[in-house]
Amino acid sequence: MAYGIAYEIEVWYIRFFRKRHEIVGEIIEVGSNVKNFKLGDKVGVGFLVESCRSCPSCTTGFENYCPGMIMTYNSVHPKDGTMTYGGYSDMIVVDQDFVVHIPESLPLDKAAPLLCAGITVYAPMKYHGLNTPGKHLGVVGLGGLGHVAVKFGKAFGLKVTVISSSPNKEKDTIQRLGADAFLVSSNAEQMKVAMCSMDGIIDTVSGTHSIPPLLALLKPNGKMILVGAPEKPLEVPAFSLIFGGKTLVGSPIGGIKDTQEMIDFAGKHNVTADIELISADYVNKAMERLAKADVKYRFVIDIAKTLKSDI
Amino acid sequence: MAYGIAYEIEVWYIRFFRKRHEIVGEIIEVGSNVKNFKLGDKVGVGFLVESCRSCPSCTTGFENYCPGMIMTYNSVHPKDGTMTYGGYSDMIVVDQDFVVHIPESLPLDKAAPLLCAGITVYAPMKYHGLNTPGKHLGVVGLGGLGHVAVKFGKAFGLKVTVISSSPNKEKDTIQRLGADAFLVSSNAEQMKVAMCSMDGIIDTVSGTHSIPPLLALLKPNGKMILVGAPEKPLEVPAFSLIFGGKTLVGSPIGGIKDTQEMIDFAGKHNVTADIELISADYVNKAMERLAKADVKYRFVIDIAKTLKSDI
Repeated sequence: MAYGIAYEIEVWYIRFFRKRHEIVGEIIEVGSNVKNFKLGDKVGVGFLVESCRSCPSCTTGFENYCPGMIMTYNSVHPKDGTMTYGGYSDMIVVDQDFVVHIPESLPLDKAAPLLCAGITVYAPMKYHGLNTPGKHLGVVGLGGLGHVAVKFGKAFGLKVTVISSSPNKEKDTIQRLGADAFLVSSNAEQMKVAMCSMDGIIDTVSGTHSIPPLLALLKPNGKMILVGAPEKPLEVPAFSLIFGGKTLVGSPIGGIKDTQEMIDFAGKHNVTADIELISADYVNKAMERLAKADVKYRFVIDIAKTLKSDI
Repeated sequence: MAYGIAYEIEVWYIRFFRKRHEIVGEIIEVGSNVKNFKLGDKVGVGFLVESCRSCPSCTTGFENYCPGMIMTYNSVHPKDGTMTYGGYSDMIVVDQDFVVHIPESLPLDKAAPLLCAGITVYAPMKYHGLNTPGKHLGVVGLGGLGHVAVKFGKAFGLKVTVISSSPNKEKDTIQRLGADAFLVSSNAEQMKVAMCSMDGIIDTVSGTHSIPPLLALLKPNGKMILVGAPEKPLEVPAFSLIFGGKTLVGSPIGGIKDTQEMIDFAGKHNVTADIELISADYVNKAMERLAKADVKYRFVIDIAKTLKSDI
């Protein structure tokens, strides 16, 4: 079975580990015009498999803002009406311009989540000046995105403080992930002491939570980056932004060039995701556990070894 | 009567037009260590009359973020416990470091409002890249701040679109203020056509209003600057910021160096506020009219001619 977006000229396939839009694997075929990849290369595909290539976003490296972007799953290609189904398969056909090289130093399974979680935190850290040694980064929420944000933060040379509602995560956060400090968001005293201390915050939480206490942690001109998306609108008092000239900014994944840059940086600094590798027949059970947040921090499916191919 | 902050070394007085924290006038006395001002100079005092001078904000030109700042009115000086009362008087004593020169080309009365309204819109336009010719600025609300934002926008060479709830302001906005376009915020069709067209927005509205339709006007990576402060928290759906990587940022007045830069720029480009000059005995009536938004766009009190001095 081969599915996904097939382009007229440059096509190639990759075998892959993993799920909907964090796909890694090896190239098993290349189209005649493919220049930068060869058989056996370790590669990855993230959230996007195509964009219009001509809008102001595409021409400046922000394909992730392109109104004509085609997602790796649940998109319909305008040329032929085919659906994209993402990574629950043993191969995928993708245009070379939407594929990144995975550095040799990274294990494929632990690199896979970086293609969404990694770029989602790396890109805003880059564009909002949170990649300069010595700066103080707050990471709100310690899940798939948050634990990777801690690792990139430390690789950039930042002081990293995790803000979490779960006191029992403190030990792991400090000892294993290497964060510098841990705040329990419900502990008013801890939050008060940390006020006006952070240059930036990455908020990864998708559940309803209070924004003003987080903005209060920022220094003047500090920036809070939203990458988690609570269902209900955030309640933001205007003065919590006006006093101190604070920024609340959203960020969605990242462009292809930035994704390659991110994974190369991860390769150099040994940044990987913490995963639990599972077989294809464990997916339903994994979904149940995900609903209970029972994973540290990402499930990765070993498709190549556990899903029978029908090629 | 002399009041305000008196410092040990550098003191001087100015006669002034106008209200609480947009004060202009002429110097009538200088302290022995005053270097940059002399008798008769036209000068102004804005929102601040002192700050700690040593915090990271003060040392980088953002006295407006200093936790120890002393406002021109309603502050208490920590040294002697005296109150600051602002500009409802015929003289004020201010440290030279918190006074700006008013360019000769500007009429004092029309320059006065720039010391708050002007710097409040100028500073964020400068720091958020909305001062580059050709960019497209949206100005939400056409009052004291908004009409000055339009004028600075045009002086920077921007395309300026005003977004207002009052259709009857269109003619004045285009013909007299020189804005390029006018959108009625309740006109869904107009708002739809303008989606994704603006590099930045300055939101001056202090009444409750809907934020997502304004964010939708921004291009990817666009910035919406809050300078008005509605009483109730803004409701901001996370995805309205995440899609397109959009920014919501607050901004409070500006630092002293930026205030001097702003008023010099205004002098060069003939940017002034539209005012109604009133006498001191009209203040109560003016307050009644302000409550009904019946002024275009600022009242300025001619204290020097209409308030009897008791020096």
